[in-house]
Amino acid sequence: MSASIREQGLKKPVTVAEYLFKRLHEVGIRSVHGVPGDFNLVALDYVSKAGLKWVGSVNELNAAYAADGYARIKGISALVTTFGVGELSAMNGVAGAYSEHVPVVHIVGCPSTTSQRSGMLLHHTLGNGDFNVFANMSSQISCDSARLNNPAEVADQIDNSLRKCWIHSRPVYMMLPTDMVEKKIEGARLDQPIDLAEPKNDEERENYVVDVVLGYLHAAKSPIILVDACAVRHRVLDEVRELVGKTGLPVFVTPMGKGAIDETSPTYGGVYAGTGSHPNVSARVEAADLVLSIGTLKSDFNTTGFSYRTSQLNTIDFHSTHCTVRYSEYPGVAMRGVLRKVVARVDRGKLSKQPSAEVVNEVAANRDSSDTITQAYFWPRIGEYLLEKDIVVTETGTANFGIWETKFPPGVTGVDQILWGSIGWSVGAAQGAALAAKDMGVDRRTVLFVGDGSFQLTAQEVSTMIRHNLKITIFLIYNEGFTIERFIHGMEAEYNDVSRWHYTDVPTVFGASDKQVRKLVVKTKDQLEKMLTETEFNKAGGLQFVELWMPKHDAPRALKITTEMAAKQNAED
Amino acid sequence: MSASIREQGLKKPVTVAEYLFKRLHEVGIRSVHGVPGDFNLVALDYVSKAGLKWVGSVNELNAAYAADGYARIKGISALVTTFGVGELSAMNGVAGAYSEHVPVVHIVGCPSTTSQRSGMLLHHTLGNGDFNVFANMSSQISCDSARLNNPAEVADQIDNSLRKCWIHSRPVYMMLPTDMVEKKIEGARLDQPIDLAEPKNDEERENYVVDVVLGYLHAAKSPIILVDACAVRHRVLDEVRELVGKTGLPVFVTPMGKGAIDETSPTYGGVYAGTGSHPNVSARVEAADLVLSIGTLKSDFNTTGFSYRTSQLNTIDFHSTHCTVRYSEYPGVAMRGVLRKVVARVDRGKLSKQPSAEVVNEVAANRDSSDTITQAYFWPRIGEYLLEKDIVVTETGTANFGIWETKFPPGVTGVDQILWGSIGWSVGAAQGAALAAKDMGVDRRTVLFVGDGSFQLTAQEVSTMIRHNLKITIFLIYNEGFTIERFIHGMEAEYNDVSRWHYTDVPTVFGASDKQVRKLVVKTKDQLEKMLTETEFNKAGGLQFVELWMPKHDAPRALKITTEMAAKQNAED
Repeated sequence: MSASIREQGLKKPVTVAEYLFKRLHEVGIRSVHGVPGDFNLVALDYVSKAGLKWVGSVNELNAAYAADGYARIKGISALVTTFGVGELSAMNGVAGAYSEHVPVVHIVGCPSTTSQRSGMLLHHTLGNGDFNVFANMSSQISCDSARLNNPAEVADQIDNSLRKCWIHSRPVYMMLPTDMVEKKIEGARLDQPIDLAEPKNDEERENYVVDVVLGYLHAAKSPIILVDACAVRHRVLDEVRELVGKTGLPVFVTPMGKGAIDETSPTYGGVYAGTGSHPNVSARVEAADLVLSIGTLKSDFNTTGFSYRTSQLNTIDFHSTHCTVRYSEYPGVAMRGVLRKVVARVDRGKLSKQPSAEVVNEVAANRDSSDTITQAYFWPRIGEYLLEKDIVVTETGTANFGIWETKFPPGVTGVDQILWGSIGWSVGAAQGAALAAKDMGVDRRTVLFVGDGSFQLTAQEVSTMIRHNLKITIFLIYNEGFTIERFIHGMEAEYNDVSRWHYTDVPTVFGASDKQVRKLVVKTKDQLEKMLTETEFNKAGGLQFVELWMPKHDAPRALKITTEMAAKQNAED
Repeated sequence: MSASIREQGLKKPVTVAEYLFKRLHEVGIRSVHGVPGDFNLVALDYVSKAGLKWVGSVNELNAAYAADGYARIKGISALVTTFGVGELSAMNGVAGAYSEHVPVVHIVGCPSTTSQRSGMLLHHTLGNGDFNVFANMSSQISCDSARLNNPAEVADQIDNSLRKCWIHSRPVYMMLPTDMVEKKIEGARLDQPIDLAEPKNDEERENYVVDVVLGYLHAAKSPIILVDACAVRHRVLDEVRELVGKTGLPVFVTPMGKGAIDETSPTYGGVYAGTGSHPNVSARVEAADLVLSIGTLKSDFNTTGFSYRTSQLNTIDFHSTHCTVRYSEYPGVAMRGVLRKVVARVDRGKLSKQPSAEVVNEVAANRDSSDTITQAYFWPRIGEYLLEKDIVVTETGTANFGIWETKFPPGVTGVDQILWGSIGWSVGAAQGAALAAKDMGVDRRTVLFVGDGSFQLTAQEVSTMIRHNLKITIFLIYNEGFTIERFIHGMEAEYNDVSRWHYTDVPTVFGASDKQVRKLVVKTKDQLEKMLTETEFNKAGGLQFVELWMPKHDAPRALKITTEMAAKQNAED
C-alpha cells in the first residue's frame, strides 16, 4: 500500500514523533533528556508539542545519567541522542540503567531509511555502510530494540517497547530515521491508554507458593524481612510496606535497598550487608531462622564482598520473575501477587517476633576530639540533618558506603548505583532526580554527596542544574582523589590523584548568578555544625555547593572491608 | 603445564604488564591516557616502570579523544580504562578513531579469569554473569580484540594486536584480567623488535598496476593529484610529496587531507570538496582529464554532500588495501609500493602540466566595514596568524568548514574529525596532540578552534592541559549554541541554544594559576587584529584562552552548502 493511500485511511492522522512523545507523556515522562544532533532535530520540534520539556543536556553521558536519576524518582524517563556519536557517548549511562533495573527509553535519531538502504558514506558512521552496528551494540544493554522503519508497524513497536521498558524496568532502544519522524500514522490509537499491566501469575501456582511461604513463616521462630534493590526497582514497595506493617516483623535493608523502609519505624533493624554491617545488625540477621528476602541482588559491593552468613535453607527469595523457597524454584511466579496474598492471609497470631536493636544516628559515639571531619563522624551527623522526603544521591566511593551509617527520616529516597558503580554518575543522577521532583510539583530537597575525583568526570552537569533552576545541595567531598581506589590498590600512587580545582567556583563559571548559588567551604566539625543547623541552609532555596574537607586517607568502615575483599578477588588465581 | 614449571623455563621473566608497556614504548608511545579503576590499578604500577607517563585523564571519553589526537601527531597511542563503566564511556571516542583510521591501543583492565569463569555478580557488570558482552561490543570498533587470558599466548597476542593496529591504522582492544597483570612471561622476546612492516605487494601485480597508471598519466593532458584522509592516516605522505615534487603536477587536498601538502608550494591548488570548493578550485579539478586520487574518503562532509563533479573514468584511486584505475580494480595492491614505483619511473618529459590559480588568504577581500568578526573574515585572517609547523585542531561545526578558507604555512598539521564528527572531540584531541608534540621534544604551537556548544561537552579536558602544562591556544568561538545544527534545522529552536558560561574563567576553576593561563576576550576586528599581531600572543608560552565573539547566525560558506544538502538527505523518502 503506498504511503498516500495508507494515510488517506487514517481516522486521526498524527506524525510518528507526535505519537511517540504523546505516549512518553502518558507513561509519566515530563522532561526529555538529550543532546541535539542533525539526525534528531526534526523530532525535537515535537517534544514541546506533546507537553514535554527539553532538558538540553551538556553531553550525552551526563544526559543518560540524568535520565537514570529521573526514572528513579518519576518512574520512567527518556533520552534522545543522535546516531553513532551521541548514542555511543550515552552507552555507559544506559548500561548502568540496564544493570541496575532502571526504565529509560533511549531514542536515537538516525539517518533516513533511504540513506541506510543505499549504505551512504555519511558522517557519524564507521564509513563501512553498516547502519545496524550501533543498534546491535545497544541490544546488549536494552530489553527491547525497535527500529522504527515502517509507518505501518511503528505504533505497535512503540507501545510494545514502552510496555517492556516498564515491566522489565530496564532500558529500551528505539531507532528513529529522519524520514519517519513526520510520517502519518493512526492517532486514534492514542485514545486507548497504553497497557502497562504486569502479566498475572497463574493462580494455582501462585496459591501454591503462598501456602509454602506461609507454612515456613508461621513455623519460624525468628523470621525477618530483608529488602533489596529489586523491591524498589520493580515497584513492590507498597506490598512490602503492608507486609512489614501487618506482620510487625523486624525489617532490614541492603545497601541497594536503603530508603525502601521507614527507618524510624520501631521494627526497622538497619542495613545488612554481611561483614560490613553494624555488628548488631549482622548478629540479628544471621540469627534469623527465616529470611524473607525481597528483590535481592547479591553483588559484591552490596554484600561487602559476598560475605553474607545467611543460609539458603533459611531463605525465601521474592523476585520479579520468580520466587525461590529454600532450594525450590518457582519460575514465572512474580513476587507482587505472592506478596499481596501473603499479606492478606498471614495469621499474625502465629508469628513469632524477636525484636532487633534500635537504629540510631551514632553522632556522639563517633565524635572524636579533633577538628577534622572524619568519615565516621560525618555520616551519622548527616542523619540528623536530613529531613523527611529528602532525595539523597550518593556517588560510588566513600559516599555509597558512608551512607550505611546514616539513619534516614521517613520518606527519604536513596539514589545510588552500587552494582554498576560508574564514577561521575551521581552528578547527572542528582540533576535528573531533582528535575523529576520538580516535574511532580513536590517540594523535596535533593542532596548529593560526591567525591572530588568522581565530580570531575561529569562536573558540567551543574550547568544543567542551573539552566533549570534546580534546588540541589551538593556536598563535594574534597579528599584529594580516588579514595576507593586508594583502598583497593595504590594508596599513594599518582594515578589516584586528581587536580585541585576551585570547586566552589564551578557553578559561577557555568553561569550561576550569586543569587542562584550559595558557596560554602567547610573544613572543621564546628563549621559543619554551624552550616547544618543554619535555617537558610536547611531551607535549600536554590543550588548550594559545599566544599567539604575530609582527610585523604580516611574512609567509611564498610568501604575498607569491601575494598580489601575486592583486592583479594582481583589477585586470586 | 603448571604456572610454576612454565615460569622456571623462562630465560628473562617479565610480567605481562611489563611486556605490554615496553612494547607500547617501543612502538613510539610515551604517554598513556586513561582513568584509574579497580580492575586496572595494579597494571598502572607498570606504566612508569616502562618509561611511560600516566596522563591521568579527567574522564574516559576525553581520554579517548585525547588518545586519538595523540596518535595523529605521534603515530600511535594508548588508552587504559576499566571494565564496563570505563570502556563504555570511551566507546564513542574509540569508534571515532576506528571510523577515521587512527591507531589507538585500548587496554581494558577486567576482572580476574577466576571471577570470569565463575560468573560472579561483580560491580561494573550487567549482573548477568556475562564477562564478554563489552568485548563483543568493542569488536565492532576495533580491528583486533585480544583477551589476554593465558600467559602462554599473551606475548603473541600483544605483538599481533599492535601490528594490526599499526598496519590497519585503527584501534585494537585488549582485555587484561587482574590476575594476569603480574604473571611471568618470556622477556627475551623483547630483544627482538616488534615487526610492524606492511606486507609487500605481489611484484608482478604491482608492476602491472604501475604500468597502467603510467600509461594514463603520460597520456593525460591535464592531470592533477588529489590528496585525501587515508594518505595521511596510512602514512604515505613521503611518497605523495615525492610524487608532487617530481611530477610538478597541480595538487589539491580534500578537507580531510588538509595539511598533507605544503600550501605555499607553487603547484598547490587549494581544497577540493565539490560544490563547497572555491570556484577556482572546482573549475580546475573538474576540468582535469586525470585525477590521481590518493587515499580518498568520500564522506558527505568531506565532499559538500557528495557533490564531486569528477568522473571515475578520469580517476585513479590509490588506497591502503587496493588500487582502482577507472573501473579496473586491483585488490591487494596497496598504494605505497605503487606510488614509489610511479615516482621512480614517471617520465617528466611526457607530462602535461596545466597550472591552477594561486592560493592566497583572502583577508582583504573578505573584510567588510563592520566591527563584527565574521566567519568569512576570520578564517583567511587566521592563515596569516599561523606559523610553520603549527598543529591546528578544528572542531566539527564552523571551524571544520571555515578552515577550508585558511591557507596553511609549511609544515602545519591539520587535525579534524570530519567523518565521525563527534562534537566536543577537539578539546580532548588538542590535549593529546599538544602532549604528543611535547613528548617528541619539538616546539610546535597547538591551536584549537572550537565552538561554545561543542566545548561544553568536554570542557574539563582543559584541566588535563593544565596538569601537564601544555601550551595550547584555544579560540573558543562564542556564537551562542550549535550553529551547524541551526543551519540544518531549527535556526531559532531552543534545543540549539546552550547556557552562557564564563568561558575565560574555565581554566582558573580547573586549577590554572594566573601565570599558567592568559585569558582574552575578543569582540571586534580591531581587537582580533591587535591580539593576532602581539608578540606575546604569538609566542604562546603557555595556555591561552580566547573567547572570540562571532555572530549567532553566521557560518562559513561551505557549512551553509553542506548543511542544506544534509537537511535534504534527512527528509528524503
